[in-house]
Amino acid sequence: MTIIKNFIIKFALVAIVFTAFSCKKENAAVTDTSNETASLQEHPSLILTAQGVKDIRAQLGSIPVFDNTLKAVQEEIDAEIALGIDTPIPVDYSGGYTHVRHKRNMVVLQKAGVLYQILDDDKYAKYVKDMLMQYEEMYKTLPLHPKTRSYARGKLFWQCLNDSNWLVYVSQAYDCVYNYLSEDERNKLETNLFKPFADHISIDSPQFYQRVHNHSTWGNAAVGMIGLVMDDQELIDRALYGIKDLKLDTKEKDDDGGFLNKDGKAGFLANIEEPFSPDGYYNEGPYYQRYAMYPFLIFAEGLHNVKPELKIFEYKDGVLLKSINALLNLSDADGDFFPLNDGQKGMSYYNDALVTAVDISYHFGTQDPGLLSIAKEQNKVLLDDSGLAVALGIKNGNEKPFNKKSINLSDGPEGTQGGVAILRNKDIELVFKYAAQGSSHGHYDKLSYSLYEKGEEILQDYGLARFVNIEQKGGGNYLKENKTWAKQTIAHNTVTQNETSHFNAKYDIGSQHHSVLNYFSSENDKVQVASARENNAYPGTEMLRTMAIIKDEDFEKPYMLDIMKVTSNKSNQYDFPYYFIGQVVQKNFDYHTPKTLNPLGNKNGYQHLFVEGTAKASSDNSKLSWLNKGKFYTLTSVTNTNDELLFTRIGANDPEFNLRREAALMLRRKNTKNTLFVSVIEGHGSYSPVSESAVNSNSSIKELKVVLDTEAYTAVQITNINGNTKLFITANTNTSKGEKHNLKINDKNYEWSGSYYFE
Amino acid sequence: MTIIKNFIIKFALVAIVFTAFSCKKENAAVTDTSNETASLQEHPSLILTAQGVKDIRAQLGSIPVFDNTLKAVQEEIDAEIALGIDTPIPVDYSGGYTHVRHKRNMVVLQKAGVLYQILDDDKYAKYVKDMLMQYEEMYKTLPLHPKTRSYARGKLFWQCLNDSNWLVYVSQAYDCVYNYLSEDERNKLETNLFKPFADHISIDSPQFYQRVHNHSTWGNAAVGMIGLVMDDQELIDRALYGIKDLKLDTKEKDDDGGFLNKDGKAGFLANIEEPFSPDGYYNEGPYYQRYAMYPFLIFAEGLHNVKPELKIFEYKDGVLLKSINALLNLSDADGDFFPLNDGQKGMSYYNDALVTAVDISYHFGTQDPGLLSIAKEQNKVLLDDSGLAVALGIKNGNEKPFNKKSINLSDGPEGTQGGVAILRNKDIELVFKYAAQGSSHGHYDKLSYSLYEKGEEILQDYGLARFVNIEQKGGGNYLKENKTWAKQTIAHNTVTQNETSHFNAKYDIGSQHHSVLNYFSSENDKVQVASARENNAYPGTEMLRTMAIIKDEDFEKPYMLDIMKVTSNKSNQYDFPYYFIGQVVQKNFDYHTPKTLNPLGNKNGYQHLFVEGTAKASSDNSKLSWLNKGKFYTLTSVTNTNDELLFTRIGANDPEFNLRREAALMLRRKNTKNTLFVSVIEGHGSYSPVSESAVNSNSSIKELKVVLDTEAYTAVQITNINGNTKLFITANTNTSKGEKHNLKINDKNYEWSGSYYFE
Repeated sequence: MTIIKNFIIKFALVAIVFTAFSCKKENAAVTDTSNETASLQEHPSLILTAQGVKDIRAQLGSIPVFDNTLKAVQEEIDAEIALGIDTPIPVDYSGGYTHVRHKRNMVVLQKAGVLYQILDDDKYAKYVKDMLMQYEEMYKTLPLHPKTRSYARGKLFWQCLNDSNWLVYVSQAYDCVYNYLSEDERNKLETNLFKPFADHISIDSPQFYQRVHNHSTWGNAAVGMIGLVMDDQELIDRALYGIKDLKLDTKEKDDDGGFLNKDGKAGFLANIEEPFSPDGYYNEGPYYQRYAMYPFLIFAEGLHNVKPELKIFEYKDGVLLKSINALLNLSDADGDFFPLNDGQKGMSYYNDALVTAVDISYHFGTQDPGLLSIAKEQNKVLLDDSGLAVALGIKNGNEKPFNKKSINLSDGPEGTQGGVAILRNKDIELVFKYAAQGSSHGHYDKLSYSLYEKGEEILQDYGLARFVNIEQKGGGNYLKENKTWAKQTIAHNTVTQNETSHFNAKYDIGSQHHSVLNYFSSENDKVQVASARENNAYPGTEMLRTMAIIKDEDFEKPYMLDIMKVTSNKSNQYDFPYYFIGQVVQKNFDYHTPKTLNPLGNKNGYQHLFVEGTAKASSDNSKLSWLNKGKFYTLTSVTNTNDELLFTRIGANDPEFNLRREAALMLRRKNTKNTLFVSVIEGHGSYSPVSESAVNSNSSIKELKVVLDTEAYTAVQITNINGNTKLFITANTNTSKGEKHNLKINDKNYEWSGSYYFE
Repeated sequence: MTIIKNFIIKFALVAIVFTAFSCKKENAAVTDTSNETASLQEHPSLILTAQGVKDIRAQLGSIPVFDNTLKAVQEEIDAEIALGIDTPIPVDYSGGYTHVRHKRNMVVLQKAGVLYQILDDDKYAKYVKDMLMQYEEMYKTLPLHPKTRSYARGKLFWQCLNDSNWLVYVSQAYDCVYNYLSEDERNKLETNLFKPFADHISIDSPQFYQRVHNHSTWGNAAVGMIGLVMDDQELIDRALYGIKDLKLDTKEKDDDGGFLNKDGKAGFLANIEEPFSPDGYYNEGPYYQRYAMYPFLIFAEGLHNVKPELKIFEYKDGVLLKSINALLNLSDADGDFFPLNDGQKGMSYYNDALVTAVDISYHFGTQDPGLLSIAKEQNKVLLDDSGLAVALGIKNGNEKPFNKKSINLSDGPEGTQGGVAILRNKDIELVFKYAAQGSSHGHYDKLSYSLYEKGEEILQDYGLARFVNIEQKGGGNYLKENKTWAKQTIAHNTVTQNETSHFNAKYDIGSQHHSVLNYFSSENDKVQVASARENNAYPGTEMLRTMAIIKDEDFEKPYMLDIMKVTSNKSNQYDFPYYFIGQVVQKNFDYHTPKTLNPLGNKNGYQHLFVEGTAKASSDNSKLSWLNKGKFYTLTSVTNTNDELLFTRIGANDPEFNLRREAALMLRRKNTKNTLFVSVIEGHGSYSPVSESAVNSNSSIKELKVVLDTEAYTAVQITNINGNTKLFITANTNTSKGEKHNLKINDKNYEWSGSYYFE
């Protein structure tokens, strides 16, 4: 509250200055319509600053990454200028010509504006001005976009979201050419284009604007940035705090099934407050954080420059900069973001939004040399003060590797709604999700995980069912299989009970709950553990999952140990799939392969799985080995002879071929109340199709055995092929670090302190 | 015949020298058992020469590629020496421990021998000697290998083939330490190990040795190389000409269904004579050529050094060196060999056999600077005279790019048995196969093709069904699906008539026939064409396929035009599959997707295809677009409303998950005598999951139309989306280059000379 009070006081002061400034503008217009318009607020001031432009011009030619980026942008924009300006009447969905053209125009305008500032060449300013005037001419009579699918239709685009993207970029262009334009020209643009544009995406579209959602963040930033350039305090306030005095129906929902505005919160600050945990985890996951990041940071940069008194980068304990660190840690060895919730695979920190994030984080943060190494890989920088700082840092050889370590990221505004743990050891990365629902982009996959080696999937998370911006595939939007398959529990590496998804796949139930951390331990380089509990996904059933990455000298690589303890008040069927990626090499059980493939079920995602093989587990350990991209992997799972094993393949009931035809092995346990699923996944050996040599192609595990399972402890014994035995004990209840444990297993005493034992 | 006569005369002369030499050896033994044993034949002389060793030692430290290779080999062998020697009693198939160990030992021995020569360090020689003595001790009482699956069982390995591999390598090791050993030691090794070893793989295994086959080439080289080291003319003759006076049953077959020895030919020279065409194409295809290449070249190098008078590299017009050029041209943009016939995907010119091939080709050929660029990519060289030459060439900056152009490679010993045409334009590569059967590794796929962009498959050839050396998958050997799927016609991009394979998939029929070139034209950079005819695959049916890669300014990339003209004396069903790689983006026909997947048939490969969708073609052009690795592709095929379209997926009746679950679109035309299949495949645009932008994602073809089809000509009109029209006319009969054509189509006259017209 103190912060907000301070804001109000400062705004009041600023408002006084604004009044004076407005008068000045009018006066100036009489005598001077050229570049020299006097102004209390300098231009550019949003992303570039007047001082920054001076510094950049002074360094040009001696800062390779910056120079190269500039050269590339100049070539790109010169080519666009040569093509001429096109601002077509909007007709298309994503991927269609008019959509793509307007999307392209916004980027081109922003870049041309920056070029004008840095190169001081009027041709860029004129280009920006001419295009803006065409938009002004069109916009003043433009009706709603003809495509009707969105819950909030834009004018230039089929959805307000894209209109907001446009204004975020174009505000920057306007700032860059502000002083190039005459006051008449500015008035014309502001009156007929920018102000009504900002109003349309906010006041006219409250269901889009007035909420906590990544869409709204774009809206807020758009309104705020044009407000900063126009010195329009009303717009700036609307950006920071939402539309004044507006209350929405708290029960209305959007297209994705999310509540439009359940608790009345809105505006940019609320959008920082709510979705980010104190650790910087963004509640929808990294794919959407990447998307949301740009408006958060670019508007924050503008606020920092124009309204430094807001101390926006210190807001909520500096969460904006923390979130960049969290986001970078949510990427695999190749920089690809883990596809938690609705995430399209392949999105990575090479995305331009991450160039923004890394540069801003470096410049406005602590000049972390690790960020320079990522910037160097990105091989481009922002053409602004922060990009200059990064380019100088790289030039001076200050970069160090960005070391991703095991990390536990809390979820929820207060950090109390579960989280995501990433366990890393050498090339192995385990992503364990025990978070809250993740807003309307969340999947129903409590306590699920995915596993990677050197950036390649060992066990996959499916990600979303969508071909973003590929018009032929459902207009580039979410496909219906996203809901019928990708969001369902059975699509994930976790337990599905009685063939229904967690929370019955109901968003309003799921969003009330979150999993709870049991413990997280990453102090020991050799044994890293995350353990969490879920009590609400299936009322009456508790799931406690403990996952460890263990580097044991008896094994070639670190392996994953997975202990899922299920306690229920009734008998259930539990399905426990392993979405392995690769080709089957070996299995130790007999199975039946049907001549005809049938779907495994008819709803909750099961309708999308073909059954390629069925088996009864025949021994205490069921094993499956597979080969992927020259590496062998083996799953060893503790089974009993009542367990069923199913080979499944995604692709049933998929008439448009929207789903990838990928496999799983599914362990099915019927008529069971309390049970334990224990498994190990090892990576081992290699195969080269060039040398045709197979190395260490067999599992190193002789036996995996549960030696104790009580309410308080679960103990698993791992015996390798040479007969060496290791014991892992996890505390299911008393897990505080100092806690002393004393336990007898098979007449042997084990004493330790902390949440787990391994030896 | 002249060449062979010359050999005999020269051998007679050499024999005289040998007699003298034998006496000398005996004398020497009395006075000198050390390194200084006098000898008419220097050692080393096989791969390394005494002069070469001097030169190498003089250059060491100043030839980076050589130095690095040497360092890596030294580290590898030092580690092996530290591990100690293991020569276990053989028990396993490929991939098992004893198999892998002996395979490893042969390489280690060869390398240790070379290190001894280059580094002049006795520890390597001692290591070779100690291991050889262990082999000698074991071998003298070693029975046949216990595994019985091979048609020719070895002793160290389950098949003579691997025993021969061993001797090819170990001969080189023996040559290197020859002078280090005492005469007694040499006698012991030769009497108890090398001579009986050579006899076992030849005299005792004629069904393996006495034939024209890549297996026999290894056998011949093994016997010949140890013969060269031992100065044993009888062994050398046996290597060059086969086992004297032995005639095999000409009707017997091997495991793969190939005749053991149909025409009595045998020996190394016959193995050069028969499988290589005058262009250097190897009849089994590039995957097996790569495998066969090593013994061909390494024995040739030994013969060149020890018996220069044989002029082995000039044999058959220098076909050995030509074949290296052919082989390099049979690789895609990444250096991966096209998987014609039984080829495992991923095998490439990075294989060690190709290091041998490139170095030998450079040194003993014309010092082609293009080879240096490949050697540089390989980043290793042979540790011998040829490797030194290459390393010096690279050091001196002599390399130039190895430009792969369009090339037509004839098949058959005289070059008259069809061939393989590769059409290349920018990043597009078309591999069109109109060759002979390809020996026992051949597939039944007359006039089939595969298509690549930048080394990625657009339309795939399946390759073999085998996991080479992965023991868990059928001992690493051919899987039964190789015969039931991979060899069958329906597995390939060509016509299957009445659901039976070409030649009824009978090897003895298929191997009597070959397709015939109609014409090949690569003079025009923009239009490259290969056309060939097959009259025997289905008696009574003629297939004439004309394939072109066309670069037209109306299209973003070069596209493929495919005209398959079928003429039959009866009505048939024709199936014409397109094995596209990627995910379906768009299609212009309605189809039905079954709830349950059933196999398409019950034999001839059809039993392995599930039907995922069925349709009737609804327009004159059926179109399918797909997306693969960020690139869009569209198939446009001329269809009529009786045509059926089937979406198929490989994987039915595959209980061991041996097959990849890959898709095809199949065009089925029933109750038809004469017909024409015409299609275009275009690559276009791009998609990046990082920028999420889709560029040019739609086909540029508005209409594909057959405007004329007679016995003499077929004319296809291609209209692009802007209405620009191009005409391609192919001459079906009179195709000589000088031929003048005059043709009226829709009242317009076309006059041209040559085999095709395009404008």
